[in-house]
Amino acid sequence: MTAGDSRNGADARLYGAVDLGGTKILTAVAGEDGRWRGEDVRPTEVESGPDGVIERIVTSLRAACDQAGAAGIAALGVAAPGPIDVERGVIIEAPNMPGWDHLPLAQRLSEALGCPAVLENDANAAALGEFVYGAGRGARHMVYLTVSTGVGGGLVLDGRLYRGATGSAGELGHIVIDEHGPLCGCGRRGCLEAFASGTAIGARGQEASDRGESPSITRLARGGEVTAEHVAAAAAEEDPAAQRIIRGAAHALGLGLSDFVNVFNPDLIVIGGGTAKIGPMLLDPAVELMRARAFQGPAAHVRVVPASLGDRSVAAGALALARQTA
Amino acid sequence: MTAGDSRNGADARLYGAVDLGGTKILTAVAGEDGRWRGEDVRPTEVESGPDGVIERIVTSLRAACDQAGAAGIAALGVAAPGPIDVERGVIIEAPNMPGWDHLPLAQRLSEALGCPAVLENDANAAALGEFVYGAGRGARHMVYLTVSTGVGGGLVLDGRLYRGATGSAGELGHIVIDEHGPLCGCGRRGCLEAFASGTAIGARGQEASDRGESPSITRLARGGEVTAEHVAAAAAEEDPAAQRIIRGAAHALGLGLSDFVNVFNPDLIVIGGGTAKIGPMLLDPAVELMRARAFQGPAAHVRVVPASLGDRSVAAGALALARQTA
Repeated sequence: MTAGDSRNGADARLYGAVDLGGTKILTAVAGEDGRWRGEDVRPTEVESGPDGVIERIVTSLRAACDQAGAAGIAALGVAAPGPIDVERGVIIEAPNMPGWDHLPLAQRLSEALGCPAVLENDANAAALGEFVYGAGRGARHMVYLTVSTGVGGGLVLDGRLYRGATGSAGELGHIVIDEHGPLCGCGRRGCLEAFASGTAIGARGQEASDRGESPSITRLARGGEVTAEHVAAAAAEEDPAAQRIIRGAAHALGLGLSDFVNVFNPDLIVIGGGTAKIGPMLLDPAVELMRARAFQGPAAHVRVVPASLGDRSVAAGALALARQTA
Repeated sequence: MTAGDSRNGADARLYGAVDLGGTKILTAVAGEDGRWRGEDVRPTEVESGPDGVIERIVTSLRAACDQAGAAGIAALGVAAPGPIDVERGVIIEAPNMPGWDHLPLAQRLSEALGCPAVLENDANAAALGEFVYGAGRGARHMVYLTVSTGVGGGLVLDGRLYRGATGSAGELGHIVIDEHGPLCGCGRRGCLEAFASGTAIGARGQEASDRGESPSITRLARGGEVTAEHVAAAAAEEDPAAQRIIRGAAHALGLGLSDFVNVFNPDLIVIGGGTAKIGPMLLDPAVELMRARAFQGPAAHVRVVPASLGDRSVAAGALALARQTA
């Protein structure tokens, strides 16, 4: 599999993508039009260490190429969690993947595949994926917010991914909503993430269940740990405690959106992530609060839409980066 | 005074700037190197209406040109308060200047002066001025925060002024610090401006004085309205109530800086505006809190410095815009 093999005309040019997560590897191969012609998912098996995982990435990409009927790819985009040195293609810190700190992943994969490879963090990749291939198409200034286990984000400003000075721009989950609020995953108090993440919603649900305030949540969790899904399901059953929890998360999200609208004056806010799938019950009151609270001009201008690529947004962004690189 | 007159070689090329405020007009003429060769200040006299003010701007620019020994300028940059339609060079809304709504100011001045003219809002112009000629020189990603009667800002990202979708990006004073906080000038509660502006510090000082909590503030205000300057002077005398007020403003400012660092990951934050002249008593604890609260990597990377152009930052930015235009 070499770069040269696929260079038989612009239309035949294929690009590869890797979405490297702590539990699974998703790879994809697509053409200039962005249509996926091959894809593969397999477990990361972090315990096998960098060499084992890199081998599995290459095998996965080969499987995706086979599906696509392609001998190789012109360039590869790789998305990984955590802080990344984009310029050098190095993973700086990988909290959930021991042995990966300072790993020159782009170079390793470039050598293994015989094509250029670029590395980006997964939130930025998801933002770019939605911008180029998903809900963000046609926008110029787009804020991407992912509401999931944590709350993260990515920024496409003036049509380009904005990374900041050291590649960590767009930590949208860690603006202060109420400094006296609940403890956040980042160690501080009252960040947006501490109010609106799936983890936060689940924790509030657990507390309500433990206090005997929510029979629905208790029943739905069946004695296991309460998740955001349990709280959302209970709220859909009109359980008052669960509804209050969702309203609280939506309120924090609305304050956050208001900040983003005043600061970025975006055309578009795209909201993705598993917890955002709770849907209108969470998102509608948040958008309503934003429109009431942010400045009138930019609040009236901005559209807020759900992400459209689901679990594929990160790999889609990696494909877009590969295309920019080739 | 026409564009052609000054086009006798690159070094001789001169640019003009207008900083149009509600009370005064500042104009300047400078060369490629940014050195001011002429400047003029005169009252705006808003009550004379757009025609009168435009005439006074032209007269002021002629005076600045005379000082510079120049017959004319190659291009003009104009900065004005409030929402601006940058592309069309039109003032959208001028709350303190009746009759100015929807005025095509750039076109009017371009016709009067016979050279291209561009319009920008004053916070963006100040940000660009500091970036090109002041404390921001050499930075790539700069957040400019002005702490004055209000709290405003401007963003230079990837080396370019970031305006957002409708030109209102960078409303940094209107992020939420505490939604249950004091009423803000924007009509909402608990924005950064409601805690850290000169107006807010003065109002807290007035309250302390009215309650008899601060003999120093009461003495310094001499029966007049308490200002941020009175509070700062009282705090410098170690008046406990005044010190508490400054600490409160600094705390809100630190939370805001923390948000900006997490969101923008800037190289540099430049803080300007009259109230920021309170100095280290206000700014040092704010920066300290930001470094403790924001993510470690970007917090360690960012420098925070005072603006260096003072009252000239807006006109300096207008000059930079004129240069980009010519």
